[in-house]
This record gives sequence, C-alpha cells and structure tokens, in this order.
Amino acid sequence: MKLGCCYYPEHWPEDIWAEDARRMAEMGLRLVRIGEFAWSRIEPEPGRYDWDWLDRAIETLHAAGLHIILGTPTATPPKWLVDRMPDMVAIDEHGRPRGFGSRRHYCFSHEGYRTECARIVTALAERYGQHPAIVMWQTDNEYGCHDTVLSFSDAAASAFRGWCAARYGSPQALNEAWGNVFWSMEYRSFAEIDPPHLTVTEANPAHWLDYRRFASDQVARFNREQVAIIRARAPGVDITHNFMGFFTEFDHHDVGRDIDVATWDSYPLGFLEQFWFSAQEKAAYLRQGHPDIAAFHHDLYRGCSNGRWGVMEQQPGPVNWARFNPAPLPGMVALWTLEAAAHGAELTSYFRWRQAPFAQEQMHAGLLRPDSTEAEAADEVRHAAKVLAQIGPQAAARAPVALVFSYEAAWVLGIQPQGASMRYLELVFEWYSALRRQGLDVDIVSPQADLSGYRMVCVPSLPIVPEGFAERLAALECPVLLGPRSGSKTASFTIPEGLAPGALRTAIPLTVTRVESLRDGVAEPADGFAVTRWREDVATALAPELADAAGRGVVFRHGKIRYCTIWPDRALLALLVERMAGEAGVERTELPRGIRLRRTQSHVFTFNYSAQGVFVPHLGATLPPASWHLAPL
Amino acid sequence: MKLGCCYYPEHWPEDIWAEDARRMAEMGLRLVRIGEFAWSRIEPEPGRYDWDWLDRAIETLHAAGLHIILGTPTATPPKWLVDRMPDMVAIDEHGRPRGFGSRRHYCFSHEGYRTECARIVTALAERYGQHPAIVMWQTDNEYGCHDTVLSFSDAAASAFRGWCAARYGSPQALNEAWGNVFWSMEYRSFAEIDPPHLTVTEANPAHWLDYRRFASDQVARFNREQVAIIRARAPGVDITHNFMGFFTEFDHHDVGRDIDVATWDSYPLGFLEQFWFSAQEKAAYLRQGHPDIAAFHHDLYRGCSNGRWGVMEQQPGPVNWARFNPAPLPGMVALWTLEAAAHGAELTSYFRWRQAPFAQEQMHAGLLRPDSTEAEAADEVRHAAKVLAQIGPQAAARAPVALVFSYEAAWVLGIQPQGASMRYLELVFEWYSALRRQGLDVDIVSPQADLSGYRMVCVPSLPIVPEGFAERLAALECPVLLGPRSGSKTASFTIPEGLAPGALRTAIPLTVTRVESLRDGVAEPADGFAVTRWREDVATALAPELADAAGRGVVFRHGKIRYCTIWPDRALLALLVERMAGEAGVERTELPRGIRLRRTQSHVFTFNYSAQGVFVPHLGATLPPASWHLAPL
Amino acid sequence: MKLGCCYYPEHWPEDIWAEDARRMAEMGLRLVRIGEFAWSRIEPEPGRYDWDWLDRAIETLHAAGLHIILGTPTATPPKWLVDRMPDMVAIDEHGRPRGFGSRRHYCFSHEGYRTECARIVTALAERYGQHPAIVMWQTDNEYGCHDTVLSFSDAAASAFRGWCAARYGSPQALNEAWGNVFWSMEYRSFAEIDPPHLTVTEANPAHWLDYRRFASDQVARFNREQVAIIRARAPGVDITHNFMGFFTEFDHHDVGRDIDVATWDSYPLGFLEQFWFSAQEKAAYLRQGHPDIAAFHHDLYRGCSNGRWGVMEQQPGPVNWARFNPAPLPGMVALWTLEAAAHGAELTSYFRWRQAPFAQEQMHAGLLRPDSTEAEAADEVRHAAKVLAQIGPQAAARAPVALVFSYEAAWVLGIQPQGASMRYLELVFEWYSALRRQGLDVDIVSPQADLSGYRMVCVPSLPIVPEGFAERLAALECPVLLGPRSGSKTASFTIPEGLAPGALRTAIPLTVTRVESLRDGVAEPADGFAVTRWREDVATALAPELADAAGRGVVFRHGKIRYCTIWPDRALLALLVERMAGEAGVERTELPRGIRLRRTQSHVFTFNYSAQGVFVPHLGATLPPASWHLAPL
Ligand SMILES: [Zn+2]
Ligand SMILES: [Zn+2]
Ligand SMILES: [Zn+2]
Repeated sequence: MKLGCCYYPEHWPEDIWAEDARRMAEMGLRLVRIGEFAWSRIEPEPGRYDWDWLDRAIETLHAAGLHIILGTPTATPPKWLVDRMPDMVAIDEHGRPRGFGSRRHYCFSHEGYRTECARIVTALAERYGQHPAIVMWQTDNEYGCHDTVLSFSDAAASAFRGWCAARYGSPQALNEAWGNVFWSMEYRSFAEIDPPHLTVTEANPAHWLDYRRFASDQVARFNREQVAIIRARAPGVDITHNFMGFFTEFDHHDVGRDIDVATWDSYPLGFLEQFWFSAQEKAAYLRQGHPDIAAFHHDLYRGCSNGRWGVMEQQPGPVNWARFNPAPLPGMVALWTLEAAAHGAELTSYFRWRQAPFAQEQMHAGLLRPDSTEAEAADEVRHAAKVLAQIGPQAAARAPVALVFSYEAAWVLGIQPQGASMRYLELVFEWYSALRRQGLDVDIVSPQADLSGYRMVCVPSLPIVPEGFAERLAALECPVLLGPRSGSKTASFTIPEGLAPGALRTAIPLTVTRVESLRDGVAEPADGFAVTRWREDVATALAPELADAAGRGVVFRHGKIRYCTIWPDRALLALLVERMAGEAGVERTELPRGIRLRRTQSHVFTFNYSAQGVFVPHLGATLPPASWHLAPL
Repeated sequence: MKLGCCYYPEHWPEDIWAEDARRMAEMGLRLVRIGEFAWSRIEPEPGRYDWDWLDRAIETLHAAGLHIILGTPTATPPKWLVDRMPDMVAIDEHGRPRGFGSRRHYCFSHEGYRTECARIVTALAERYGQHPAIVMWQTDNEYGCHDTVLSFSDAAASAFRGWCAARYGSPQALNEAWGNVFWSMEYRSFAEIDPPHLTVTEANPAHWLDYRRFASDQVARFNREQVAIIRARAPGVDITHNFMGFFTEFDHHDVGRDIDVATWDSYPLGFLEQFWFSAQEKAAYLRQGHPDIAAFHHDLYRGCSNGRWGVMEQQPGPVNWARFNPAPLPGMVALWTLEAAAHGAELTSYFRWRQAPFAQEQMHAGLLRPDSTEAEAADEVRHAAKVLAQIGPQAAARAPVALVFSYEAAWVLGIQPQGASMRYLELVFEWYSALRRQGLDVDIVSPQADLSGYRMVCVPSLPIVPEGFAERLAALECPVLLGPRSGSKTASFTIPEGLAPGALRTAIPLTVTRVESLRDGVAEPADGFAVTRWREDVATALAPELADAAGRGVVFRHGKIRYCTIWPDRALLALLVERMAGEAGVERTELPRGIRLRRTQSHVFTFNYSAQGVFVPHLGATLPPASWHLAPL
Repeated sequence: MKLGCCYYPEHWPEDIWAEDARRMAEMGLRLVRIGEFAWSRIEPEPGRYDWDWLDRAIETLHAAGLHIILGTPTATPPKWLVDRMPDMVAIDEHGRPRGFGSRRHYCFSHEGYRTECARIVTALAERYGQHPAIVMWQTDNEYGCHDTVLSFSDAAASAFRGWCAARYGSPQALNEAWGNVFWSMEYRSFAEIDPPHLTVTEANPAHWLDYRRFASDQVARFNREQVAIIRARAPGVDITHNFMGFFTEFDHHDVGRDIDVATWDSYPLGFLEQFWFSAQEKAAYLRQGHPDIAAFHHDLYRGCSNGRWGVMEQQPGPVNWARFNPAPLPGMVALWTLEAAAHGAELTSYFRWRQAPFAQEQMHAGLLRPDSTEAEAADEVRHAAKVLAQIGPQAAARAPVALVFSYEAAWVLGIQPQGASMRYLELVFEWYSALRRQGLDVDIVSPQADLSGYRMVCVPSLPIVPEGFAERLAALECPVLLGPRSGSKTASFTIPEGLAPGALRTAIPLTVTRVESLRDGVAEPADGFAVTRWREDVATALAPELADAAGRGVVFRHGKIRYCTIWPDRALLALLVERMAGEAGVERTELPRGIRLRRTQSHVFTFNYSAQGVFVPHLGATLPPASWHLAPL
C-alpha cells in the first residue's frame, strides 16, 4: 500500500513547494493528490487558462519522486461561471437557491454546467493525460457532500420528466406503477410531473424512490462524462472518485463500475460524533473512533470497483466539521493506516499535507501545522511507512462472509421508515459489527454480486429484490440470514402480490402478515435478547427457530436459509453469527471489547481500539491502547 | 350502531368488487364510505365526467345489502385543475406554495377553487342525490389535516381584509380593538392589513386571533357551500364531515351546526404516540391507546351536531403516520368499537376495507391485507357486530357532568401560552380524564350550550367569556369549577377592564392580580398536590378553600362556584372531582388504573385498557387485558 | 441614582395623564421615558405631524416634577412608510422579507429608510431639542432586538460591497486576506461579492467575520446619524441608547463611544430562563435571577460610555417573552434596584409604568396593573427610593479586577466554535462569576481600555489581539490570566504565522500546537478540577503550573502572566482567582451560595439572591431571602 497526501500548491508560496516535496518523500509518502479545487487558478478568467503554475507544481513534486493524483476541479466552479449561468446552482428542498461562497454549488442536471465541466476536464486531460507524473485521476470531489445529490431546480425537474418518460413510456404506465389513483394524483402527461418536494404532506413513496434513482443516475452520468473524457486522453491511467463515509444518497456501485479504483475519505472521529452511536460509545471511543467505522467502509468500497480501492483522505488529527472535534489518541493514525492495509487498500492518502491557516478548513489538522512544523501524525506516518515496507504488499483474501449492501434499500427505508428508529445504515453496520466482533472477515457486496464461494451470506434488509437474486440465494449451500423487510417492496415501491417477502418466498416459505414499529425504550423480552424497534408477524408452516417470551417467532429457518423478523439486538446477532459460523465450519474468535482482527492473504492483524490496554486471549498478551499486532498467516 | 368501512373501488379491479361487497356484509358491515378522493377518476379531463364506474360500484355494493356514504372529492383536486389555477394552492407560514403531489393542496379562500368545488359537488349531487343506496354524504375529507386551515396566500390576504372590514367597519375601530397604537401598528385602510406571518417578532395576538377566526370561518363557509348544494339535491339525506383527533384549528361547533352528523377519525395508537403523553403512558398503553383518547373525542363530537355522531374512520391495526406504529393488542379493535357504542355513536366505520399496496398509505392496515386475506381485525369486527346485535341500539343519556370546551380558548392559549407548557387541549383532557377515572360520564359541550340540568359543570379554561355565559353559570344550582385564565381576555384579545376573570366576576367575586408560569420540573408543594406550570394571585374577600404550603390560595369557592388558580395536577383534580360529586350527590366509582366505565340509556360498559388483567371491585371480578364487561342498567 | 419609568401617554386616555404623573412622583420616580414607539401618532400621515398630544404629555409630566427621556421612534416605522418603500425591510438568512406587524422591520443599510429616520429625528429634535423638560434623548430602541442586526437584503449586499472596497482597496487584497484561493472562491471585482448566507456549506469564516463587522458598523452609523442630528439641536443634553442583555450582535463599545450614557434593559428572570444556565440553576434562582446576571451587564455597560450608564428598563414583575415567566420573589425588585446603585448607575427606570391591556406585551407586568391599581413592585420601588435617598449618590470606584470583553471575540467564537459548547458569553460570564463569588468587584473593559492601575487582569478569550494589546499586557505589573484561543486568529480570521497565541507570545512564551473540543459529558480528571469542552496542547519551555492527571499542562505561567489552555471549570477558576488575588494582595471574601458583595466609593452592599435565609460570615448575621445589607465603607 502506498502512502500519500492531499496537497494544494496554489495555497502556498511557490518557493516552499520543493521543500514540501522533499519532506513528503522523506516521511514515506509516494503519492500526492492535487488540483481538485483549483478552477479559479487554472482558469482565472473565462477561457483564459493558466497552466504554468500547475506545470511547475507537478514537475516539482515529480522531481522529488512523488506521483500525482490529479483531480478535476468541478466541485468548485468560480464565481464568474456562476454569474454567467445563475440557474446552474441547485435548489434545496425548501425552494432556495444554494449559492456561491463555499463549494458544490451546482446542480447535476444543469446542461450548461455539464458543458462547462466537459470543457475544463477536456482541457486538463489534454494537457496532462500523457504526463508521466500522473498515475491517477480523480473526478470532482466527494459527490453529494453537503446534501448535494438532490436538487429541485427547473433543470432537475425537466430532466426528471425525461427520465420518467424513458422509464415508463406513457403517463398511464407511470400512474399504474406508482398507484397514482390514490388521492387523484394521476398525471395526463409527463410534463405535469414535478419533483416530490413541497407537497402538503408526504409525496408518494414511489415518486420519491424514482426521484432518488433519477438523482443517483444524474451523479453517475455526470461522473461518466468526465471518465470518458479522461480515458480518451489518458489511456491506461487509473481513474478514481473519493467517496464519503456513511453516505448513501447515490448508488456507489453504479459509479464504482465506471471508475478503476474506489477511494473514500476516512474520518473515524468525526463519523463517531456525527452518527447514531450511543453516548457511551461516543465516550469510550472518543479519540479512536468506533473499531468498525473504518473497516466497514474499507470492505464496502472494496466491493465497488472490482476489488480495487484505497483511502484518499485519512484523518490525521482533529477535524473541523463535527459537533465536537477531539484529537486522536497517540498511535491511532498509524493504526488506521494499517487497518486500511489489512483490508487490501492500494493507497492511504492523508488529508492534508499542511493545515491551511485560512478559510473554511483552517481548524482541520494536517501532517504539518500551518507553520510547517510537524504535527503529531507525522511520526506515526513515518512509522506506518516502515511497518508497511517490512510486511510488503498486502492483498485482500476472499472473506468467508458476504454481507449484502443495497443503496436502493437505504432509499426505501429512508423514504418509508415506518418507525423513527428504522435506519438502514445502522442496521447493516450492526450486522457487520456483530461479525467482526467474532473475528470474521467480511466482504460487503452489492445484490448483483456473485455470492457463490462464500461460506456465510448475510442480508440485513433488502426490500426490493433484484431479478434472479432469490434464485441465486436458494442455490447457495452456505447458511444465509435474511433480515426484516426483505422482499417487502416491488421495484415500484408497492407491496408485492402475495405480500412480503415476495420473490424471496422461493428461498424460505413464509408470509409476513403484519409489521409494527416500537418506540425507543420499548424492549419486549425474549430468550437472552429483546425485541426492539421492529417486528413482523409471519404465517408459515415452519416452526420458529427462536421466539420471544410470548412464543411469537423471531427467527425461522428453512434448510440453510434463515429469516429474522425483528430488528436484531446485539445479543441476537451474536447468537446467530455463532450458529451460522458453526454450521458453515467457519472459525470464530470471540474478541474482547475494542479488539479486532483482520486477515490479508499473507498476514493476520490484531488491533486494539480501546483507550486501555487489553489482554487478548488469541495472542496470550496484552495490547497497549491504540496498538496492533502483526503476524504472518 | 351500524358498522361500516372505507372503500376505494377505483383502487381495485372491478371484478373483485362484488366479492368484496359480499365479504363486507358477511363480516357484519352495513355501511361503506366511498368516493372522497376520486376526482381524477370522476373527471379525468376538464369537463369530461366518467360516472359509469361509480354507478357500477354503487350498484354492486348496494346489491350486497350495503348502504353508501358518498364523499365529495374536493380534498384531492387533480393536477389539471391545479395547473389551470396555480395560485389555488395554500401558502405556508414561510411563504412557500404547498404544491401538488399529495392532498389538501388548496386554499380555502381561493374563489376559483371554490367555484370548481361547487361545480363538482353539484355534478355529484345531481347524479346521486336521489339514489336509494346513498344514506349519507360526507363533505371533503378531514378539513385542516396536514396543517391546512391557515394559508397565507394572496387569496387569503384579500379575503381577510374583507373579513376585517365586515367585522370592524372602519380601520379606526380595528386599530382601537387590536390596540394598534402599540408599536405604531395602526392602519389607515383595510388594504394595508396583511396576514400576521413573517413579522419580525410575534404579531399582535389580536391580529392572530382574528386571523384564526377568519380561517375558521373560511372552513365553515367552504363546508356550508357544499352542504347547501347537497341538501338541495338530496333532501332528507344526512350530511356529515369527518373531523380529526386532538385538532382545534377551526371551530368544529360552527361546522357541526351545518351538518347532520358529526363524525371523526379515531386512531388511538397514533394519537398516543404523537401527543403530549408521558413516556410512561406511551409505554403502558402502547398497543391500547390511552383509555380516554377515544372517549374524549366521542363526547366532544357528540356535542357538535345536536348529539348525532359517529366514527368514520376506526384504526384496525398499525397505522403509517405516527413516529412509531405498533399493532393493537388482540381485542382492542372490538373494544374501541364498543366504546363508541357506549357513547352513543350511530356508526363505526373502519379505515379501510383492504390495505392498499401502493402510494402513501401502503403501510396502513385494513380489515383485509393487500392480498385479500383477513387481517387480525376482521374477526374482532365480526365479534363486535354480534355483541352489538345482542345488546341492541344504544343511546347516550344526558351525562351528570358538563365539560365546557371552546375552540376559541384553544386559539387564545395557543397564541399566547405565556408558559411553554400551557396547552389547552392537554388541560381539558386532564380534567376529562380525572372525571372518567372516577367513573363519571361526561358531556363535552360548547360555551353556548344549555347547561341547565347538569349536576356538575367544569370549565377548564375559558379566556373569552361569551355574552350571557357568566349569567347562565351564576343561575346554575350545581357545583361549577372554573379553571385558570377564565375570563382573562375580551373578544378583542385584551385584558378586560377590572382584570380577569372579567365577566365571570358576577359568578365569583375575585380579581386575578398577577399570573406566572413555572418551568417544567418546578413543583411547589401544597397539601397532597403540587403547583406546576401556572399560578395566579387573586385579590378577594373569600377565604381560600385550598391553599399551597405558603398559604397562597389555590381554590376559591363562592356558593356552588369554584375558581382554581393553578394548572391542577392529577391529585388536585381527583380531590376536586370528589368534592363536587359529593356536593352534587353524583355517585362516583373509583376505578383501578386502566379501567373505565360508561353508561348508555340502557347499559353499563366496563372496559379494561390495561395490557394486564385487572381486578375490578365494582364487578368483583378480574377483567382480562383488552376486554370489557357489559350489563344492563 | 434617579428612578424612573417607561410610559406611553399615547396608550392611555389623556384625562389620566396628570394623575399618572402625580402618582409617579409620589412613588419616588423622577424620570419618564416616552415616545420611542409613537411614530404613527407623531406622523399619522406622510408629512403631517401631530405634535399637540406630545406637547401636552410632556407638559403634564413636567408639571408633576418629572423629567423626560425622549426616544426617537425609528424602531417602529408606520405601515404607510413601509408601503412606500417595501424593500426597506430586512431579509432574513433564509431569504424571506421580515414584514410589518410588530417592530424593527427595517434594514440598517436601506438608504431610503435612513433618510426617513433623519427626517423624523430632525423634526423631533427641532421641536423638543431645547425643551427644559427633556433631560435625555434615547436613539431608537434596543438595536438588534429580534435578531435584526444582520440583514441579507439587496441594500445590505450593496452596502457590504462598498464596505469591502473601502477596507481592502482591491478584490485581490480581499482574496488574499480571506484566503479565497481555497475552494476557488476568488472574486474578480467587489460586485461579485454576496452576503455569506445560503451557501451550500459554511461560508468562509473571514467572509462571515467581515459581514458581522460590516453589520455592526451599519448599526453604529445608523445611531451616529441620529446622535449628530440631536446634538446639533439639543446641545448639552445627554444621549443614550438602551442596550440589551447577553447580546453581542454589534459592537457596543463602538456605539457607546458615540453616546453619553450607556443604558440597558435588565430582565433577570427572563435572561435566566432563556440562556445556558443549568436546570438546577434555573430552579434555584427561578424568582431571583442568577446573582451575576444583572451585575455582569452593569459592569459591562459601565465600560461602554466613559463610565456613565444606567438601567433604562428594569423588570418589575413577570415578563411575557421567556419560555416560562415566573414572578419575582418579594423584595427582588428593590434588590435589583440597589444592585444597580451599587454599580454606579445614574438611573433605574422600570418597564413599564402601567401594564398594557392590549397588543404584544399585555402579559408584561408594570408598576401598575392595567386597571391602575398598584402591582407588587410599586411598594418595593417606594422602599428603594427611600433607601437611595438615605445613602445619597453612589459612585463606582475603580475595581481591583479588569475583565476584558471583546465583541469581536464573540463573533469569532460564534462563527467558528469548533466545539458545540464553545460559547464566548458563557465563558466570560463564568470568569466574571468566579471573581464575584469571591467578593471581588470587577470592571468589564474593552480590549482598547487602559489596563494600568488594575490589580488583576482577566482575558477569558481574545482570539484577535488588537494592535498594542500584547505590549500593554506585558507592561502590567499585576497578575494577568489569559484564556484559551487568545491570539489564535489574525484580523482576517486566519491562524497567525507562528501559530497561537500570535502577538501574545511576547507576553508569554508558548505555542499552541493543537486544539481539541470535547463533547458534553466528557470530563478528564485533573487535580481538583476537570478538563471539559476545550483543551490545547502547547509547546513551551515553561513548566506547567497546573496539569491534568496525565501530566498535560493546563496553566502556564510566565512572570505575572498566566495562560490557561482549557475551558476552566468552576473549581479551576476558583483556584486561579484565589492565587491571583493572593499575588496581587487583593482581599477576597469567600461568599456563601447566593450571597454577593459590591462596593461603591462610599458603601459596601451585601445581597442575598437565595430563596432562603443565608448566614453571611462577613456580616455575622443571617440575611433573609431577597434582602440586602448596606454599610458605609
Ligand atoms: Zn514518475
Ligand atoms: Zn338500499
Ligand atoms: Zn424641569
């Protein structure tokens, strides 16, 4: 795994570039990402390009032995461009334009802006497509950041109408698919259709789902246009995009198919603070991050682009954007780096080389402080670089467990939670964490993935079952666990004929006759676990494998396939993982709190995410806080 | 009491209508509400009516022995109509149009839309006014649902100016009434007046109160127009509107006067979840609903249309619209049905016959599942139908207790709570619940109601005292209890000359010299109860009947009339109910937690709303959870 | 100290004015503020002035021996004026106009409105500038109330562009200062610059800071225009403006320089309820207000206008605008009055004479009730007047402690809290309270103030260090305590070269190498105190004076100057105050909970803010609740 950093030569006086480059190389870095926010310097006035500084920056870095990841600057159109086409900005759900003054102030559907993007990307690719220093291209930056996937502009509305026409052919077919007879919502032409916002009460969930699909398609199309331009001018050079964490607004599997390497931006402390973790977890892992946050995304994005992936932005210290921004425990930056290697990353790039003393991210740490002294992370990077050199390249092995992740499922449960605590990402994360707490390696895969060869398959929830998925499941010989709401919707966001689990009934013979959501704090007892948040009644000839205290079935099993009718708590998940692993003959390792395992093709990594030293039985030793143990397999 | 259901023939293939009708009749249903959202099917294009399908649906249902409640479809204008007059939609308090894509996307003040409504209602009434199957008409659907009473459109602003001119005659009179000299808010013409939204800080409360009165009048006028059209074409056929729960945005007493039967939509589990009940109550009554939610509304709406009332929509299982949506405990659907009968309902109609597999309410249970199998409630309906047949028609008796409810009071306390926990609906509900916990039947009546003949009269709060009310109170010979803030405002939302209780001083000689609100958590001790939320100082020659620990009077009594200066907690309410009942010679029954009593002219009903069996002293027996006991009087 | 009240003759029938005036004088009042909301009565139609009523009101009051504080009515432009220039209203951060119907519906940047203000103020000053009854003028009313400092109107945007041009000279200089190269935010002309709202994510903090400076300057300019008009026509008459509590939206030191007397509006119970105090404090001081709320502002505003200050509005009973509005404990109105005297106020004026029975503030108590009977406060006012007469004029002495307060600091920490609990006002208040709990008198001063002569200097946080400040600090011979984030920003909201504390490094040789914020609930142990909310790592040769349990330095000391790296909790503040006072030889008095001390040049005041009697060691006696003890020095 190569190490790198994110660097903004345009932010610094040219006379320190060479020294910066020298220090990067000395620190063990080999890659530098540049360029992705520099539009106003590349094209300071309409049509006038200034390549000189960028040429020199690239040369200077290359001369120090570094290779470049070059970003397209389309996330930050300059003011002159916005002023030329003011309707290029997105419109938010309240109808307000999302103006200039930060970044991502564009609507993916605006044709004029897409033309401008093609122009600047073409210019960039023509100039640097064959440059020997450039080893990777990055399209745009963090698609969707700051809630920018959805836009409700005229451009978006118009594009959505076309999208609907292409999908349904006739308004009658759309009305039928969405069930628009309900509340007289029928359309007589596609021109009558608006985005689903600002309705008096909730819009039709089918309307919302198609709007989300459309918006995701617009992101993928936007990206694909840049990829095509770059490919034509930089043949053979890898293309990436840097995805975000806990983010499901567009289908990353779609975008992932068009690029060569899926990268993501890993901020374990910020993510812990901003998401659903309990106050206890937020306190326990304050300076380490929850032990499964980074790993979850590593395994998720490894499943997006044919197994090639990396970390484009790695948190090196306190960030600026969470409600609270603590500093990592000493050792964590190195530990996070090695966790990436343990999952098979091709690169880990720190964000950023030097903390900027100005503008929005001035409180975001870097490897250097604003005064160019080394920040705490610098020595950890050096150390990680050495360890990585010692152990050599690490390649991910096929994991014993496949966990099926669906962006569409996230949209469906988001559009219609039916209970306020029904969060798809949290549900999947809890399943993932349950597996990892027992020492199991996991591949997170799309519903289209080939599942053969896995020894356990987990499907936390898959409301819309893709064509052929049920048949593929039924053909598996390994234990399969299906979670609640699987098969509960058709592709048109309706309840399937014959009720849930719809197509999955070929895999397990039961029918969901009623669902209910339970308010936070309600826990109905069962044998060693509790029923919380969600439960389903089923009609089936199967005897329940597990039931609650009142005898209502909670887990049903049909051959290798199980269906769980509730939001499983940690105790139930632990029990199910244990049973499935036992049936599959997969070896488990019960890990102490805060300890995690991960194997590559050649090594086994043990990590201690605790703030305390922990005795690790499988090592027969105590690992200090924020430390790891490495062994060849 | 007849049973019925809500049915949408337009949602289902015509070839199952006859079988649906047969099954309804078999289940014990005799009424079917249809039509209220079907505008796009009745008039698929401007001016082209399609009656055929509706003719056949009515015939098919009628042929099975069912009678029809026919709804006007004005809650769901089709897209073509909205596109013809885009300014017909309401404008929300933030200035945003409330667009097409769900329902109720209209402004009550838009003349063009009112003309369209008159047209479609006329067409419907001309076709079906004399149809023998139609036994009742429903106007529109749930006026005000999704916060749709208030609109801030140009149409509304213009209508409000006319309303003000009619009420005040001159801008000078309005300025004087509102006290517009304060902050130089004086108007020189009615044309200068805007709706009271988007002001820098709160608008004049008198401005708000008149805007609420105006908006309520617009709803009543809108309804009255439909009633007049239907009456002229369906003479002698009952007209209803289906009101909602815990909803005070318009004066239901006003609308009630124009219709024949007040119906309402009863969702006990959803209401428990969405309103102010404590976390403990929400857990204890999770699958039953608080024992007084349905009863409260039964008694409230019985007081709206000359005593004729019913339940137009009865929750039959989990709903889709609350934050959490649990399933009713087995037995609750039948229990809720019998509670309606015990309050003298003419009908209980379940919402809905079959769960729709599409669109916004696809997660709302019906009597049938989407696959036409029977849902849990079906057998409970059958059982309830049998019990109702056995006991015969039940008529409400005049209750011993009158509880005075004022929509205007809800507006006044909402506009000017003066303490964040001052909620009129909760206050009235607590008084109601205190009476019912002691086994007392209650009539909830308007301030205009004839109070003679009652044996106890409770007025939880009546800030604006209608003409003659104080005199009527003073003439009563039964115990009367007045709550805080009664008589504290004039009709123009000013403090009365001579201070509160204003006109009520003829009933009890005291003067409120100061009021204060207490933050949540503050409880100042008194003898067996506590002072919370609200307290008033009074000047009076009366000795307090009850005082707090510091000797400040809490309850004052003058003959039969008491005034309570605080937000009474449950202990104080229990004490006051006990005293008043004792003085009135009204027999009380102290009921265990979760047990409720209700008497008709012929029977006494005992209900167990607990999730556990409860020993009921007055029965000498234990009632299982979600069960009832019935006995002739 | 003179007592007064706020009076609105236009609200009352003219035939009671004389009696009101007589009663005011009898109660001990000598000042009456009038006129500040009366525009619609002074100029009922465009250009037609009606002075008669105001002439008579002034004469009537004067005839009773009262003197007048006359307000300009520019906070309440009448409807006819708004209709003539509808774009004079402010635009809120969401882009919505802030309409007519309450008050302060104007944008400080609207030239047309400023012209109108100049016209009405000129007319008023010409008529009454030489009137012997007028002893003080008040400009406008509570600048900024209801979040009105910031406006995002076209007028504001245009004025901001001019402000930027004046400050920076060229767009290039502005780009450089703000760091606009970040995210391609560079401007090519000042015309391209918009206000920093409605950006996709946070705007550049430098953009925000300049927008706040600009908005503050607009307030000061608006005020200065009125001051100039009045001065020219009322030479020698004092001019004031009534500031608010816990309010930092504009720089009060700037406005204070242009007026003669800084007054403020003191509502201790409302402020306790509305601000950050803990639930326990809100309960303990429910009817008294926190013992430092009024004192803090007295000392703050005494530092704004050359030491001349007063209370223009004093809470006399329950108010109407807090979430909860309790009544003061008997005695508190007099106690608050004496606390003002103890800090050297020239006047305390009660808001208001008589409670209005109409409009927005009808639930706000006065000295009289709406029926003209005396409210609870009336006798307390009489009592306070007598005590004040007995002790004679009280002048503030120079306090031993200077506490440096910076409005700019409040903006910086508000724009970039970096941790959600980082609140500048709370931080300063805690430092102030720590001093006062040990019986120390405090001067709250601007960073420009002369600090020589103080015996202790506290700087809770001063991110941007004014020119010369560090040198002045270093020259002091008394103990100085600097708080976290001091010196952490340049004037352009960037991190200083050489890192924090920037210019302050001349005062204490250390460098802040990293900062972090800790989530609420996290408390890292130290010796008798805890680290919460905020902590900094420093590089320094100094040994820490205090460290946490892990040995990380918390307080560093260099000669007389200390730097505290954390948000100090109360235990640490108590320790530091004790040490510094010891070093300075300043006598402390450890006060029991709820007891406070304050000295004038002639007297020492002891106040009991508790709801219980408290034994006061330095008096050797128990003070009853809400009482005070007075002694000559
Ligand atoms: Zn190379
Ligand atoms: Zn019939
Ligand atoms: Zn005089």
